[in-house]
Amino acid sequence: MKLNIAVLPGDGIGPEIVQQSVKVLTAVADRFDHDFYFEEAVVGAAAIDLLGNPLPDATLELCKNSDAVLFGAIGDPKYDNDPSAKVRPEQGLLKLRKELGLFANIRPVKAYDALIDRSPLKAENIKGADMVIFRELTGGIYFGEKSTSKDGQTASDLCTYSVTEIERIARLAFEAAKTRGKKVTLVDKANVLETSRLWRKTVTTLAEKEFPEIDLDFLFVDNAAMQMILNPKQFDVILTENMFGDIISDEASVIGGSIGLLESASVGAEVALFEPIHGSYPQAAGKGIANPVASILSAAMLLENFGLNAEALSIRKAVEMSIALNVCTPDINKDNHYSTSKVGDFLESVI
Amino acid sequence: MKLNIAVLPGDGIGPEIVQQSVKVLTAVADRFDHDFYFEEAVVGAAAIDLLGNPLPDATLELCKNSDAVLFGAIGDPKYDNDPSAKVRPEQGLLKLRKELGLFANIRPVKAYDALIDRSPLKAENIKGADMVIFRELTGGIYFGEKSTSKDGQTASDLCTYSVTEIERIARLAFEAAKTRGKKVTLVDKANVLETSRLWRKTVTTLAEKEFPEIDLDFLFVDNAAMQMILNPKQFDVILTENMFGDIISDEASVIGGSIGLLESASVGAEVALFEPIHGSYPQAAGKGIANPVASILSAAMLLENFGLNAEALSIRKAVEMSIALNVCTPDINKDNHYSTSKVGDFLESVI
Ligand SMILES: CC(C)[C@H](C(=O)O)[C@@H](O)C(=O)O
Ligand SMILES: CC(C)[C@H](C(=O)O)[C@@H](O)C(=O)O
Repeated sequence: MKLNIAVLPGDGIGPEIVQQSVKVLTAVADRFDHDFYFEEAVVGAAAIDLLGNPLPDATLELCKNSDAVLFGAIGDPKYDNDPSAKVRPEQGLLKLRKELGLFANIRPVKAYDALIDRSPLKAENIKGADMVIFRELTGGIYFGEKSTSKDGQTASDLCTYSVTEIERIARLAFEAAKTRGKKVTLVDKANVLETSRLWRKTVTTLAEKEFPEIDLDFLFVDNAAMQMILNPKQFDVILTENMFGDIISDEASVIGGSIGLLESASVGAEVALFEPIHGSYPQAAGKGIANPVASILSAAMLLENFGLNAEALSIRKAVEMSIALNVCTPDINKDNHYSTSKVGDFLESVI
Repeated sequence: MKLNIAVLPGDGIGPEIVQQSVKVLTAVADRFDHDFYFEEAVVGAAAIDLLGNPLPDATLELCKNSDAVLFGAIGDPKYDNDPSAKVRPEQGLLKLRKELGLFANIRPVKAYDALIDRSPLKAENIKGADMVIFRELTGGIYFGEKSTSKDGQTASDLCTYSVTEIERIARLAFEAAKTRGKKVTLVDKANVLETSRLWRKTVTTLAEKEFPEIDLDFLFVDNAAMQMILNPKQFDVILTENMFGDIISDEASVIGGSIGLLESASVGAEVALFEPIHGSYPQAAGKGIANPVASILSAAMLLENFGLNAEALSIRKAVEMSIALNVCTPDINKDNHYSTSKVGDFLESVI
């Protein structure tokens, strides 16, 4: 298969982790006889520094004309601590999601047996946990109108959702549940928010009409944040809106033992995007300590997206092997750890 | 001291837990020679059933004319699963918070040594954790304009904040930090939300001007949800907006080993309100299995609010004793457990 892959390293540790994924994908292409072409483009703070724009037109064009996007990470503390900055790195990622129509962010979370003792949670609570979070990605408070009053005394963010926006991601979540534990948990705050009530109503109707065989239940987001730690094994597919999904999925990373392992796929229209759920981790940039596995597993999701399941499996097996052999960055292997590129080299070598 | 205490049992397990708090407060009044007068009023689903209104005027009047409010819990599944209900129990609590001007919800969280093994988190991660969450309570997306389009196809919730709203709770948080670890962590999503950027700017300015001796740092809410589990000991005072505070504080309950232990005070104007952070837990109502301790510790906060520190301490000591002796409801003591009222009796007896 021939695949044109746009590579957007972004900020912080983005470049060094994405480099490992390209290495591993190249090994996969070699072994399985595919043609993967990689083209790089800037995004985020890196793009602001270079071109004054967190998502330059050329970057967006490249993504639109590619088969898939491999995304690193975005964000830089110099913008975080300047609340009045008009141009910010994150706008690059948000605009990209919107422009590519990536309305569903899919975040699988599971406890790796070999890492179970690394988690801050007790082994018996997480052993066997295996869920996937469907986070709505192009709506809600992220994209509603924002404003600050002229005198700077008040600010606002609007959260909106439409039935169409809810239905399209809900369908993906229910379809996924069919191939898994046949259970969907909608996380919302329907006792307070009008948008959450629209979610509850829309999802309930859809479930009754189109997915009667799937178990649907509901959790308020505050309770969900607690249940995620108390009893993560109760979850199969979690469906939720943009902001709640952002919070709950980062929280869920503690189950896997490190956020450096969590992959994600953002899908919706033709071109899908694959990115780790961790951020740009600027304190670690350039030190060779960042875990490339989340990005590499995101690359496996990229392959699965094209039906290249054996290929994806070769990556997943390689990762399992690296964990079993403790060929891991310091977030996982505190003592005798390997650098970002050494882990990449190992994974490349066992593909 | 003479205190008029409005008692609002509310829904679900509310009545049975509040009853224990009244018992314990009465014992305190006896022992320390105070006059506590209790007057009950309906709120929430109970008030809707009776009067069609989740916050009847008489209830609000009683609260305004009392020295303090002891609040049970609110919420009923028959409304949760009916997204189109116009009148809902939660409106009672939200309106009460607004009318009484309770802009700050104070939620202490700590790991009890005796319960450390009950937590889903490993002991070494939580031993010594001791934080207090200051959650803004009368602004943000809870109280902004809500709407649904005529055709029912879209819904929206507006999140707004003003400098004044942010400053007044921030001051309380910084004042609290002075008497504790001298550190405030602002939890926001300033890389995406305009309101969060106003929080960051306002809090930074305030800290520089009025609280230079306090350490101020920032965490994005997604990262905070993760850090709360990875390393809760890093937190001293957490300051955050309404929705994020709702989520983060329920999540933090896992540190204490049971949400049935977490007390809270809502303050702002003359009359303060004291309530457990847990909800109405309708599945448990009437079964005698609800943990009354969160409400009883909230009663201790009530006493502290009037400078009755020795009195409050007698409650806290009693609770510690009950935990040490395992005189606990089944959320804590799985085997040989005591009922809600038996725990109340024990605490009353050792005051
Ligand atoms: C960088 C930020 C805008 C982004 C988000 O909040 O969506 C990130 O946290 C994520 O989860 O992908
Ligand atoms: C019952 C509900 C409206 C309430 C809230 O979200 O504020 C509750 O969860 C709480 O935390 O006090």
